[in-house]
Amino acid sequence: MSAKRQLTLNLFIYPGGHHEAAWRHPNSSPDDLLDIAFYQDLAKRAEEATFDSLFFADGPVLADNIRYASRFRVEPITWLAAIAGVTRSIGLIATASTTYFEPYNLARLFASLDHLSRGRAGWNIVTTSAGQAAQNFGLSEHPAHTERYERGREFVELITKLWDSWEDDAVAADQASGLFADTSKIHFVDHIGRHFRVKGPLNIPRSPQGRPVYVQAGSSEDGRLFAAQYAEAIFTAHQTIESARNFYADIKKRAAAFGRHPDHVKILPGISPFIGSTEAEARRLEEEFDALIQPDYSLTQLNRMLGIDLSSFDLDGPFPRHLLDRDGAIGVASRFQLVADIIDRENPTIRQLIQRLAGGRGHYVKAGTPEQIADEIQLWFENGAADGFNVMPPWLPGGFDVFACEVVPLLRKRGLFRDHYEGTTLRDHYGLPRPESLFATPVRASA
Amino acid sequence: MSAKRQLTLNLFIYPGGHHEAAWRHPNSSPDDLLDIAFYQDLAKRAEEATFDSLFFADGPVLADNIRYASRFRVEPITWLAAIAGVTRSIGLIATASTTYFEPYNLARLFASLDHLSRGRAGWNIVTTSAGQAAQNFGLSEHPAHTERYERGREFVELITKLWDSWEDDAVAADQASGLFADTSKIHFVDHIGRHFRVKGPLNIPRSPQGRPVYVQAGSSEDGRLFAAQYAEAIFTAHQTIESARNFYADIKKRAAAFGRHPDHVKILPGISPFIGSTEAEARRLEEEFDALIQPDYSLTQLNRMLGIDLSSFDLDGPFPRHLLDRDGAIGVASRFQLVADIIDRENPTIRQLIQRLAGGRGHYVKAGTPEQIADEIQLWFENGAADGFNVMPPWLPGGFDVFACEVVPLLRKRGLFRDHYEGTTLRDHYGLPRPESLFATPVRASA
Repeated sequence: MSAKRQLTLNLFIYPGGHHEAAWRHPNSSPDDLLDIAFYQDLAKRAEEATFDSLFFADGPVLADNIRYASRFRVEPITWLAAIAGVTRSIGLIATASTTYFEPYNLARLFASLDHLSRGRAGWNIVTTSAGQAAQNFGLSEHPAHTERYERGREFVELITKLWDSWEDDAVAADQASGLFADTSKIHFVDHIGRHFRVKGPLNIPRSPQGRPVYVQAGSSEDGRLFAAQYAEAIFTAHQTIESARNFYADIKKRAAAFGRHPDHVKILPGISPFIGSTEAEARRLEEEFDALIQPDYSLTQLNRMLGIDLSSFDLDGPFPRHLLDRDGAIGVASRFQLVADIIDRENPTIRQLIQRLAGGRGHYVKAGTPEQIADEIQLWFENGAADGFNVMPPWLPGGFDVFACEVVPLLRKRGLFRDHYEGTTLRDHYGLPRPESLFATPVRASA
Repeated sequence: MSAKRQLTLNLFIYPGGHHEAAWRHPNSSPDDLLDIAFYQDLAKRAEEATFDSLFFADGPVLADNIRYASRFRVEPITWLAAIAGVTRSIGLIATASTTYFEPYNLARLFASLDHLSRGRAGWNIVTTSAGQAAQNFGLSEHPAHTERYERGREFVELITKLWDSWEDDAVAADQASGLFADTSKIHFVDHIGRHFRVKGPLNIPRSPQGRPVYVQAGSSEDGRLFAAQYAEAIFTAHQTIESARNFYADIKKRAAAFGRHPDHVKILPGISPFIGSTEAEARRLEEEFDALIQPDYSLTQLNRMLGIDLSSFDLDGPFPRHLLDRDGAIGVASRFQLVADIIDRENPTIRQLIQRLAGGRGHYVKAGTPEQIADEIQLWFENGAADGFNVMPPWLPGGFDVFACEVVPLLRKRGLFRDHYEGTTLRDHYGLPRPESLFATPVRASA
């Protein structure tokens, strides 16, 4: 056991990489983006670097700017199951929507992933922000933010009961007596709520971790409340250490108010590192990527975050601040504030704002030497801004390799990051307890 | 290319094996039933035996007789994705319900499975017969048989459009011009039906097979119509070659009436073989398994198939034929007729009927030498009863190994079965065409 507090590192895999023009760069291989071997190789490298976990975003709708970028979405649970087949230790976190899945189906998909990966599954719980998703599910309109979170809470309460519906020792498999399962340890969940009515039990025995690790990424007021109550890890976007510290303190306090141990909520800000042997070289690399940006793509992204169509404005003119509807943000709520803060702080032209956001869609982009990146990580980690990082390589796989080969050894040398896995499950890596079943019967005194 | 018509062989994997008491037999390893390595090893052996495919059944509800047998259900799409990671050629068929999935979600799960397996996915289309499933999805009652099939047809029409919504060459990935996808080749499906309203397109490029192979297993009137119209392979249960021949001729005729090529509907009856070096040894093996039957379990199975509670009857008394409601079968419709035929033909006691059904839940159980099993397969194959078989080992993995080692070489020697894979996809193995997208634009003359 390490005595020193350890960083949690997650690899966030985005087809092509996180820079919005990454797929166009000669370092990228856009022909491999649907090839499972590409992702399996990447996962093996992340496992060699003893990363805690890797992660895929998701949403049940096609991005309307697919013309310009590799924004298709393979389904992450299946994708991670194929990755589980060629890895042994690394955690596997899939995004899935509480608005557009049926709880019983999703409970089965994750329970199976946790079984087949021997306890490495995590669920990034999202309510889906893209309104067009509704049209793929027969809804006349996308449920409002508050409504989605209300359904999300009921969904999590219900799916937790389903994952707990078999006590850990319900399977007897006693060949001699013929008792396969002790049905007194398998429970109906009998859930009756506003959104769901589910009897249960699940038809899969309890999985190695009991439940997958609950991950969350919303930073709106609803999102923070939800995260503080349920999330065991939070992916979050901050441009400055001050913003991250405020978020960190707020979430830990809220979690404690829910009676939770603050260490059981890992705060993982995103970082997208451009790494060079000098800072100037790193900046040149970032500029190479920025030169490949297609403004038509970027403007649709901005429109999504801010609810403003900027296509008729001069790219090199000032951002039209009067259009920011600060009271009625209709885009992705948590990103609205972040982008508005950048505009207030930096007063950029539209083109400058586009470049500012191209690397990580609002996440922190840092160009520097390996030492500078490691210093920044250490600074945030040791000053109440982060329990670790959601590492978002600008391009793949090279953008991850340079982090693994140049930055990870520095973090290890400083005693901040493991050089081997001590446990076998994602809960082990994150230092999270394995939850007991809600239905577990208290230990009886022996007769 | 083989000149001679070749058998299609599918391995039907049932946790523990197909004999209902298999998990109790010393040859079984009930502790491995949730261990993915057990299934991955089995898949590798099936691939060494050049089987066309392997298959998992499924249903979104826990069997009420789990006390007596290993009747949990891991989710098969995820399970097969993990198996895809360690195999290269064998087809991977997952069952999923048109009654209890959302089409957009299921389209994504299968498209991902087809991508990550490089074209090896198959979908066993079921409407779910177990009525209790409704209670896991907020429905006050399970939709009736005809209603389920109506929804199933609309589901298949819709999901086909989703899988076709990207033309094969829609992804350009042209780094120089910045064109990632040609949006003129990505289509809204704009489906508006009685059960679903889905705009599309799918958010995943078209998969290697275009669509997974469509498999079906219903044998009721609705099931046959559905199969003749959509299925490319049919799993079916017959106790006699006569019954199988009638079914075979009926389906091929119906398929032709739908304008389909009869060779593009593979008829695969189930066979559960007990194999011994003499017929007597094979029968002793079967008796060993039958001796482990728990009648309380078997009676719930019979109740499910016939809609009759026999628990108060003498097991060694005659089957109470007057209780058979031949006009209003409420159980699994296609199995009702099969079991009623056995009762009419053999006039068994209840215990004899239980033993008769224990091996394969109505599928054909055959005890014999490897030669006898191979003879039976050849007889059905060459006399209009089968295009191949759904092989259902009584126990696993040994029950499969003996078939692979003893029967497969005989089939090869007789020129009936491949000794290596000629293609790479499940469609290749089954000899099925790769469907063109419904939205494909006709080839234009070059300018």
